[in-house]
Amino acid sequence: MEQNFASTLLENAVNEFAKLPGIGRKTALRLVLHLLRQDKSSVDNFSQAITRLRHDIKYCNVCHNISDTDTCALCADSTRDSSTICVVENVREVMAVEATGQFRGLYHVLGGVISPMDGVGPADLQIESLVQRVASGGIKEIILALSATMEGDTTNFYIFRKLAPYDVRISLIARGVSVGDELEYTDEITLGRSILNRTPFGDSFKC
Amino acid sequence: MEQNFASTLLENAVNEFAKLPGIGRKTALRLVLHLLRQDKSSVDNFSQAITRLRHDIKYCNVCHNISDTDTCALCADSTRDSSTICVVENVREVMAVEATGQFRGLYHVLGGVISPMDGVGPADLQIESLVQRVASGGIKEIILALSATMEGDTTNFYIFRKLAPYDVRISLIARGVSVGDELEYTDEITLGRSILNRTPFGDSFKC
Repeated sequence: MEQNFASTLLENAVNEFAKLPGIGRKTALRLVLHLLRQDKSSVDNFSQAITRLRHDIKYCNVCHNISDTDTCALCADSTRDSSTICVVENVREVMAVEATGQFRGLYHVLGGVISPMDGVGPADLQIESLVQRVASGGIKEIILALSATMEGDTTNFYIFRKLAPYDVRISLIARGVSVGDELEYTDEITLGRSILNRTPFGDSFKC
Repeated sequence: MEQNFASTLLENAVNEFAKLPGIGRKTALRLVLHLLRQDKSSVDNFSQAITRLRHDIKYCNVCHNISDTDTCALCADSTRDSSTICVVENVREVMAVEATGQFRGLYHVLGGVISPMDGVGPADLQIESLVQRVASGGIKEIILALSATMEGDTTNFYIFRKLAPYDVRISLIARGVSVGDELEYTDEITLGRSILNRTPFGDSFKC
């Protein structure tokens, strides 16, 4: 549908919203008309929050997670177990693991996974700084918590090889049937892994 | 899910996005992390487009449509038929009617419909200015093109009564079975109206 916007201001705003992932032109127009009905101060808050985020955001100089300070609140928290590091792709996975309440160690945010198809190599990720963290000592275990994809597996293997010279335990988060899932609807690879990696009865109730 | 954002900048931006209609907190986080990966200049363009829209937008002093100028491009276009006015709710309906290419008259944008449940009365809409446009003469026909809802019907009737003293033809856009729809799937009210308002065979091919 060719659209005649009657206003270049309106058209620009719609074009900008339509650049966001998953937002089509109709949705963009709906969002823009919604903003147009709000107070000027509300709209200013919206656009300032975005500008400030992009210009003032920092990344923790230890774990590379998004942070307001040079060292993030998690890395600065002395009550956490600094001998265990959970390696994740992005801030979303940090939030997901934190939400479980099951992990009291620190994180290392790679910023993605190795994906030659997307032009992402090891040098584009925070892998060298992970090796340095391990090399500087005091770390007993690295938990790899990347996506269960080919790219995730490749990255796991790359990190595993890079950390081989060091005296550190490397583990993978468990892959298996989701809690609450029925076996008949679980894909065979997941079900197969869950049988190979079975745990002694009783261990599941420890946490 | 309680979310621990690790950054108030990130959290603020997510909160602002989540205020938009149809955007939940998970989608908001996805959009914000997308923006964080873009160039600073792209993000600045995004937020400036929104700020400018809200601060600099004008409404046409004739038809009240969104406009960059005091009188919008449609109202200023002398090739259009200024004796016919199509009354619509918002800029989206102007765009929808314009996209048909079937209308060469002018518009009048009410800014909504009468809806006591939402606290919208006639005084909140551009109805008085429509009456003034008609009163000032030169207008032969008013086409009411509001939503086929109770609020739309109420508004139609209110406008009809307000314009009764003037020598102007008032018509409603046709309601009937959509082009391409099968009769068996059409709701009975629409089908009933389409039978009552049947048109002579041959008229449908005129346009």
